Amino acid sequence: MTNTRTHPGRTRAVHVHPRDVRLITALTALADPVRLAIVRDLAGSTDWSRACGSFDVPVGKAALSHHFAVLREAGVLEQRDEGARRVNRLRRQEFDERFPGLLDLVLRDEPA
Amino acid sequence: MTNTRTHPGRTRAVHVHPRDVRLITALTALADPVRLAIVRDLAGSTDWSRACGSFDVPVGKAALSHHFAVLREAGVLEQRDEGARRVNRLRRQEFDERFPGLLDLVLRDEPA
Repeated sequence: MTNTRTHPGRTRAVHVHPRDVRLITALTALADPVRLAIVRDLAGSTDWSRACGSFDVPVGKAALSHHFAVLREAGVLEQRDEGARRVNRLRRQEFDERFPGLLDLVLRDEPA
Repeated sequence: MTNTRTHPGRTRAVHVHPRDVRLITALTALADPVRLAIVRDLAGSTDWSRACGSFDVPVGKAALSHHFAVLREAGVLEQRDEGARRVNRLRRQEFDERFPGLLDLVLRDEPA
């Protein structure tokens, strides 16, 4: 696990590299409609262009925070702080190397 | 959903064809160590050769029954009754058509 730099008053973002992620952790992370929506939306966005609050998902701030933590800890996405914003990128290449075909399947399937 | 013939005193086995299964249902079904063990073991067995009690998983009868129901309802496996035995087959081809690459990923990954 690696930690990003912290912003005052902000919880540190714990990351796990996909190579250290177990299959069940990856499947569980993707088996949720809110997290699927985030992943699909992120896949269509430029790296580091999307702040956490920019996703159109029907959950509150605490729940959203939890969903991002699950995705980080499953190696699906990476976050970094840019001033007051926490921005995201999909770990497309390294996740694909660890779980070939899984993101493709998730991205091409019908909306959840 | 289709039901198999029932055996006296036995719960009917509800099946769902993979084409009617949602992605999240399939991911959830596979995101469990007991169910992964069943799927992997079944993949190495001849169709209809394995009774439910023949899998080496550390759960009781009620829990095992639940795990098989989850797998049936996610289109992962099919069951039929042969006298007192309920036997299984992996729905390899039709599940692959619905979720290309997912079973391959699950079967080649490290043991859970």
